[in-house]
Amino acid sequence: MSQNTVVRFVKRPTGFVDESSFAIETAPMPKPADGQILLRNFYHSLDPYMRPRMTEMDSYTPPFEVGQIMDGGGMGVVVESRHPDYQPGDVVMGMLQWAEYQAATPGGFMRKIEPGVAPWKDYLGVLGGGSLTAYVGMKLIGEPKLGETLYVSAASGAVGSIAAQMGKIMGCRVVGSAGTDDKVAWLKDELGLDAAFNYRTVASMDTAFKEHCPEGIDIDFENVGGVTLQAVLDHIRPHGRIIMCGAISEYNVEGPGLKHIFRIVSHKVRMQGFIVSDHFDMMPAFAADMAGWLKDGKIKYRETVVEGIENMPKTLVGLFRGENFGKLIAKVGHEPN
Amino acid sequence: MSQNTVVRFVKRPTGFVDESSFAIETAPMPKPADGQILLRNFYHSLDPYMRPRMTEMDSYTPPFEVGQIMDGGGMGVVVESRHPDYQPGDVVMGMLQWAEYQAATPGGFMRKIEPGVAPWKDYLGVLGGGSLTAYVGMKLIGEPKLGETLYVSAASGAVGSIAAQMGKIMGCRVVGSAGTDDKVAWLKDELGLDAAFNYRTVASMDTAFKEHCPEGIDIDFENVGGVTLQAVLDHIRPHGRIIMCGAISEYNVEGPGLKHIFRIVSHKVRMQGFIVSDHFDMMPAFAADMAGWLKDGKIKYRETVVEGIENMPKTLVGLFRGENFGKLIAKVGHEPN
Repeated sequence: MSQNTVVRFVKRPTGFVDESSFAIETAPMPKPADGQILLRNFYHSLDPYMRPRMTEMDSYTPPFEVGQIMDGGGMGVVVESRHPDYQPGDVVMGMLQWAEYQAATPGGFMRKIEPGVAPWKDYLGVLGGGSLTAYVGMKLIGEPKLGETLYVSAASGAVGSIAAQMGKIMGCRVVGSAGTDDKVAWLKDELGLDAAFNYRTVASMDTAFKEHCPEGIDIDFENVGGVTLQAVLDHIRPHGRIIMCGAISEYNVEGPGLKHIFRIVSHKVRMQGFIVSDHFDMMPAFAADMAGWLKDGKIKYRETVVEGIENMPKTLVGLFRGENFGKLIAKVGHEPN
Repeated sequence: MSQNTVVRFVKRPTGFVDESSFAIETAPMPKPADGQILLRNFYHSLDPYMRPRMTEMDSYTPPFEVGQIMDGGGMGVVVESRHPDYQPGDVVMGMLQWAEYQAATPGGFMRKIEPGVAPWKDYLGVLGGGSLTAYVGMKLIGEPKLGETLYVSAASGAVGSIAAQMGKIMGCRVVGSAGTDDKVAWLKDELGLDAAFNYRTVASMDTAFKEHCPEGIDIDFENVGGVTLQAVLDHIRPHGRIIMCGAISEYNVEGPGLKHIFRIVSHKVRMQGFIVSDHFDMMPAFAADMAGWLKDGKIKYRETVVEGIENMPKTLVGLFRGENFGKLIAKVGHEPN
């Protein structure tokens, strides 16, 4: 406990992110001030939304400052407490630093979690922010109705795979896309989607939708943007909903621009963005629904765990290239006993 | 009553519409069948939505068929009735042909109107579909809150001018744009908008918004699309609403494509289209509110009346060039006594 490794954000990327935006450093062991706790972090969530945070944006989600230690959703165990409500051994979840150890002030998004409900990893995974994101988008914006067609881009990802399965639970015909044949097979064979395709090998998104969504798209759970969103708009049905969860294709390069905007008028489309942190009030409903779905075997999930804090930058870079399969988690230390 | 003039739609335009899409013809006097009425039409509404109807579109609003007599919102007086509920002298409103005389089957959007409530012209104008369009968009999608900033493009038009004044009534700071200095002066001096600018003479929409909406835009009543919508998206505030009423800049030429789509996510924007004919159930609430606002002097309106059925094609062409000021009405016959 005398050495600490941290990952700093050192350079805003232009275009595709590479590892030069990050620096892995040895830092002194932090000391908790009065009211703080010292955490040994053990899991970190790696997510697409981290890319826009690397840009200076006018948004509610604050950008990373150049020079800061990276942060994101993570889990840690209390090793020393100067806060009356926390004891050594308590496990907390929240926006944590990419650091083996950190001093933290409880409150805000940081909360103590009860052990034993599920494996620790699942708190960040199937029970975590990605799944809640899918839940909020589908419930508040998608409002799926029986028999409607739902299309999910990035459907094998942490968010997309939950959105797609929620669509099945709610009686939709669900079509998903992903970037490898393995992922497509998993969508069809394991998740039971009605159709799935590899967006890298189809002739075009337009032909893919003509084949797989011949009646058009009622609901789009949008993670990609760009040409994907264009094809969705060109195939949207009257009163369609486009759940704007992300636009990963835009994060690294400026997209081609969305044409045929008049279809939003003519087809009475609702295209709506959201940020999950506005909707933490839905956590209890989500937790109850998800527990039931898991118990009934209606939700399957997949995660990739990468070990070692020093591997976090390159793993995050790979996320933007679609190299992950399912939820991406970095293990930066051993689980607490 | 032995001769009838009609306007046919004879050619789908590519790019800007010109008069060659229309033919003015002499047609035989129609004869009403059993259950029909013979109408002498006297007012017609000319509206931006007619441009997309000239294109073959996949939409709930049916396109004009090549060869058909043009139609649109209009008013006529019954001259002969073979329908038990209609008498000669009754005035009806509905989707009427661009024809001096037509046989029509009452029902659907066609209804008898009570005389004496307002001048006949106002049934198509301030009490008509354009105003209802503004009302539906503001109430269902805009949901304005006290102190929010509302931007209205095409603010001197039939729809925009009502939307802008509803914004003032609901306590918004209202900024409008139009295409001549006369219109801009009217927006400021007569309608009392907080700011207005000529979109043809500003350096860019971006600089105009920096000057006139320095805190950003909460609600956009969008009639234009293209570079206007792009600038709105670039200046939208968190939780902004973009009321997609029209995209007149796209009707004649394909636009540049909307970039920075990720802002819809990061700013939790709702961008929603609607078609007024889905919301005729709001007509009673609209009529009651509008009557009160007119009585209190809170709504002002302006209309341009063009005489003669033979002038309808060139007047409609002028509408797409912004040549009208306020609501555009064609007078194709004298008002009933």
